[in-house]
Amino acid sequence: MNEHLTQLQHWVQAENLDVAYISNFTNINYFTGFFSDPEERVTGLFVFPDQEPLLFVPALSIEAVKKTGWPYAVAGYLDQEDPFALIADEIKKRSPQPLQWGIEKDDLAVFKFEAIMREFPQAAFPADASRFIEGLQLIKTPAEIAQMAEAGRQADRAFTAGFNALKTGITEQGVVAEIEYAMMKEGVMHMSFDTIVQAGVDAADPHGGPEQVAIKPGELVLFDLGTDNHGYMSDATRTVAFGQGVSEQAKELHKVCLEAQLAAQSAVRPGMRAAALDKIARDIIDKAGYGEYFNHRLGHGIGMSTHEYPSIMAGNQMELKPGMCFSIEPGIYVPGVAGVRIEDCVHVTETGCEPFTHTPKEFTVID
Amino acid sequence: MNEHLTQLQHWVQAENLDVAYISNFTNINYFTGFFSDPEERVTGLFVFPDQEPLLFVPALSIEAVKKTGWPYAVAGYLDQEDPFALIADEIKKRSPQPLQWGIEKDDLAVFKFEAIMREFPQAAFPADASRFIEGLQLIKTPAEIAQMAEAGRQADRAFTAGFNALKTGITEQGVVAEIEYAMMKEGVMHMSFDTIVQAGVDAADPHGGPEQVAIKPGELVLFDLGTDNHGYMSDATRTVAFGQGVSEQAKELHKVCLEAQLAAQSAVRPGMRAAALDKIARDIIDKAGYGEYFNHRLGHGIGMSTHEYPSIMAGNQMELKPGMCFSIEPGIYVPGVAGVRIEDCVHVTETGCEPFTHTPKEFTVID
Repeated sequence: MNEHLTQLQHWVQAENLDVAYISNFTNINYFTGFFSDPEERVTGLFVFPDQEPLLFVPALSIEAVKKTGWPYAVAGYLDQEDPFALIADEIKKRSPQPLQWGIEKDDLAVFKFEAIMREFPQAAFPADASRFIEGLQLIKTPAEIAQMAEAGRQADRAFTAGFNALKTGITEQGVVAEIEYAMMKEGVMHMSFDTIVQAGVDAADPHGGPEQVAIKPGELVLFDLGTDNHGYMSDATRTVAFGQGVSEQAKELHKVCLEAQLAAQSAVRPGMRAAALDKIARDIIDKAGYGEYFNHRLGHGIGMSTHEYPSIMAGNQMELKPGMCFSIEPGIYVPGVAGVRIEDCVHVTETGCEPFTHTPKEFTVID
Repeated sequence: MNEHLTQLQHWVQAENLDVAYISNFTNINYFTGFFSDPEERVTGLFVFPDQEPLLFVPALSIEAVKKTGWPYAVAGYLDQEDPFALIADEIKKRSPQPLQWGIEKDDLAVFKFEAIMREFPQAAFPADASRFIEGLQLIKTPAEIAQMAEAGRQADRAFTAGFNALKTGITEQGVVAEIEYAMMKEGVMHMSFDTIVQAGVDAADPHGGPEQVAIKPGELVLFDLGTDNHGYMSDATRTVAFGQGVSEQAKELHKVCLEAQLAAQSAVRPGMRAAALDKIARDIIDKAGYGEYFNHRLGHGIGMSTHEYPSIMAGNQMELKPGMCFSIEPGIYVPGVAGVRIEDCVHVTETGCEPFTHTPKEFTVID
């Protein structure tokens, strides 16, 4: 059994559960190596305290499961069959009267929850697997960090493609097209999220997207992008100048943001609190007078998704530990003027942290 | 109130509900025009029998909601706040003691369900909004059909880009890159699903994806693709020959599949059963001796997603009606030989159906 799956089984034993039902398909990938977005179909990993696990999938996916090398049982259902009746049969073979269930409360939809209660009217749901998995995923193994480092190298090449695409007349969406095309041509078929390219005042809206609008010389251009490397994500942001004529105020925003980013990144230590790290960056931006324009947390965890733990924000007293992976991404968004964000994702080491991306962060003019 | 939202409020009234909670973000878009994938954050549309609706979003999204022209109340929460406590406050302003709830059982995660039960311990959940919405979405309005027709025209241009990309040495993934690049350059930033390009024996696995493998002259190449046009999806499949030398057997598969596709498409009539339509295509493939290689349903509904109703399959006695939109996509997959699938999505009219895509379906050799 792989390390993660073993830990999940230990949790099932420690919580005195009869069965755990893992329904989230990213988490099924994490534990099994099998990835599928089943849309309206049902996929589940069932883990028992003293039996081998069972992967339950649409019948059409059984061959794909076998190709991954999954060494345990796999069962399937056809579209016209009731998946939960079949799941109940499979579970009863392994645990005749499962009373204590672990489920992923963040993921499991009510209709599946009700189906389990219908098949097992005496079932109780004392344990939330979402919280357990979230904790397990906090610390990445060396193999996971290697996958994320490769994703980071891909992101660095994506920045290069994006910077090379900046030329007179190109639009924000046009630059996105060049970035994603360059990635696909090297076989990176999925970005980790929709690539963001925002120029000038557009970048002052941290929740806007790329528009069909030409990038003008003298504008700052914000690139926020990442790739999906076999399920492991990268995520990084650079803000560069397109041509000459960037205003002194925009340069000042970049200078302050970079100072905050570098200070936070070099301050990371095991044992430090997440909130303290956020504060290091925030204090620098506050002191420069831009505190009100840094209106989001400093960072988020990253791994098989770009929204995991730890959250690097005020109030989070979680201690940083080696193997944790998260973004350090201060931003300053001055409406009507410009927006700057600079981001690396890092993994905590015994003595500090190492970034996954290495594209220079200094103020750069792309001519 | 827009037509869909009015119908949802009528359902709330008819079911004697105090409130309906719409949590699925595609459905929130359907009712409000606001689209956001909130990932771990909470977004909800709350609809009351005798009050204006409320949209509840992360605070960061409030401006984006206002930009859509949403004319009713919007409330937000900050990351450090408990969204369900705020939701409860907002609901109580409009319905002091909401007892009867409608929820989307296909979507609502257990943690949200438990949060509602914690805030409203007397709440009952007699009505499944998933089933109501699924029925509502079965029939598209003329405005929706116009959006889907535009998505279809985009898909036709994507086929052209893909056919033009076929040349010696290009890989399946390379062709995908050219297709998606062409779409992004015209401002179509999202495909409706991962573009599939499969050549030769690869196409015999209807659940495989494009590989980093060169397409060889004499192979059939299957293209399955679609675009996302302001939330409305296209989806179409063509199978063409790359260069000369396609085997007689592969040509035969194409001929049979095309006959089945055309027969089904020209047989569509209001009042016909979904199962009967599936049978028309299946009988042709059965009679040609390939029945065992057509191992999926004839079609699926399409609209704001590519997996809605009606399902065109054996056993589904649903009557087809004008405004229904679905795929007609017979496939024949002979392991080790080739795979062929031909698909148009159509909308049912008063007298038959009209396809959204118009790329020729006849056997075509791309030299």
